[in-house]
Amino acid sequence: MTDASSATDNYVLTHTMLRIKDPARSLEFYQQVLGFRLLSKLDFEEARFSLYFLQPRGHSDSADGTLEHTFSRMGLLELTHNWGSEDDDTQMHSGNSTPKGFGHICLAVPDIAAACARFEEMGVQFQKRLGEGGMKEIAFILDPDGYWIEIVQPSLMDGLLAKFKA
Amino acid sequence: MTDASSATDNYVLTHTMLRIKDPARSLEFYQQVLGFRLLSKLDFEEARFSLYFLQPRGHSDSADGTLEHTFSRMGLLELTHNWGSEDDDTQMHSGNSTPKGFGHICLAVPDIAAACARFEEMGVQFQKRLGEGGMKEIAFILDPDGYWIEIVQPSLMDGLLAKFKA
Repeated sequence: MTDASSATDNYVLTHTMLRIKDPARSLEFYQQVLGFRLLSKLDFEEARFSLYFLQPRGHSDSADGTLEHTFSRMGLLELTHNWGSEDDDTQMHSGNSTPKGFGHICLAVPDIAAACARFEEMGVQFQKRLGEGGMKEIAFILDPDGYWIEIVQPSLMDGLLAKFKA
Repeated sequence: MTDASSATDNYVLTHTMLRIKDPARSLEFYQQVLGFRLLSKLDFEEARFSLYFLQPRGHSDSADGTLEHTFSRMGLLELTHNWGSEDDDTQMHSGNSTPKGFGHICLAVPDIAAACARFEEMGVQFQKRLGEGGMKEIAFILDPDGYWIEIVQPSLMDGLLAKFKA
């Protein structure tokens, strides 16, 4: 058996895929509210679905329009839209109620107070606001399908969580 | 309203959180099979859960042991273990059967044939093998909880998918 330390040297976690009901509202949210850029869109006419690959603005690199680029970047979001779901009764499952599984994606921001104030101003739904609960310096917002997005400011995390380090 | 292009300049997608039943089997899988490194572990004694932050080997950076580091890295995996679930009838929901939502995480590898051969050798479960289905150069493996992990070789993706580009 090949040792993991050589066989897996260049493995990269590229994207997380979430199904969405309505690309218009999801793209507005991820692009206008969170500032993500659309790197690639793929349309599968025969199977009637589209894929949207989105990247936060803090991931600085020079997209060259290739799919090799899109599929080699760390930390992208892939949204899958099955055509027609925006017009039927499709509702996505966030994974945070029974049956549980997936929990959230996490967005690091340089100034969480400013970020959350802007989200409030834009009418974003919160699962947990700053100051609520035990972890007062972490927030959770909801995307248009109800998926949870954790919002953290990395510079606050040692102060908040160091006592839990194993 | 602040413009997204300045307000969101340094936003980064840091991690994707998945709940797990049994940390022993999940850590063995992500560390031994996929080669991920454990960056941070947090234990919440009162609430009886632990968090494991894992990073693939292709994400080269110098971890300094701080949580500021862990919470600012792109493309990490966070595994949440509620204590005791390894001994009860807890089963995680992959999101790929009703009710649907989350789909998969995606791992880019430099040589997908070699990667999949090694996975077979190690007894990894496949959702879709290379050569099966319409997308013959993509595979899906299953983690110990049944979450789907897409395996792609970025250099093959333009040849495979360029005709679907919007």
